Amino acid sequence: MAQFLELDRTFHALADPTRRAVLGRLGRGPASISELAGPFDMALPSFMKHIRFLEDSGWIRTHKTGRVRTCVLEKATLDVVESWLSEQRELWEGRTDRLEAFVTTHEKEASE
Amino acid sequence: MAQFLELDRTFHALADPTRRAVLGRLGRGPASISELAGPFDMALPSFMKHIRFLEDSGWIRTHKTGRVRTCVLEKATLDVVESWLSEQRELWEGRTDRLEAFVTTHEKEASE
Repeated sequence: MAQFLELDRTFHALADPTRRAVLGRLGRGPASISELAGPFDMALPSFMKHIRFLEDSGWIRTHKTGRVRTCVLEKATLDVVESWLSEQRELWEGRTDRLEAFVTTHEKEASE
Repeated sequence: MAQFLELDRTFHALADPTRRAVLGRLGRGPASISELAGPFDMALPSFMKHIRFLEDSGWIRTHKTGRVRTCVLEKATLDVVESWLSEQRELWEGRTDRLEAFVTTHEKEASE
C-alpha cells in the first residue's frame, strides 16, 4: 500500500506545468530556488509549495547553504516511473505479439 | 497551453492505484466495465468515475454494444508520456555526458 501511495504522489507531482518545468530545468543541473523561480510569474510562497511537493514526492532533494537553498533532481524517481511505464508497454506488446501469433496460426490453417 | 493541460490530466490519471490497475488490466486486452470492476471493493458509481477520468484524459476509449460497455487502452497516450520522460532523461544524460567530458578534459590537462 505504501508503494501505491508513493506512486500516487510521484505521478501527481507531474500533473502540473510549473512542476514539470522545474524538473526540466533541474535535468540540466542543480539550481537555487531563486534561479528556478525566475521564469515564473508567481508569488514565492506559491512557488515554494511546488518545490515542497517535488521534494515530498521524491523528485528532488534540496539543501541549504547560508541563505541559499539548492535543488537537485533525484534520478531514482525517473527510473521508478520509467520502470512502471515499461511494464505497461510489455503487457501491451506481449498482447500484440500473442494477437499476431493467433492471426498467423489461423492464416496458416486457412491456407492448408 | 492546451498541451500543458492535457499532460496535467494524463499524469493526474496515473496518480491513483485503481486507475493504474485498470490500465494494467487493459494492457492485456479490451474488457467490459463489469470485468474491470470485479477485483475492486468499490461501489459502481465510484468505479465509473475512474473510468470516465481515464476516458477524458485520453488513456482509454469505450464503446457500448447493447448493455455492455467495453474499454480499450489508447496506446498513443502511453507514447506521449514515454516521449516526455525520454526528453527528461536526455536532458539528464546530456548533462552527465558534459560533466564527464569536463572531468576527462581536466584529468588530461592535469596529466600533461
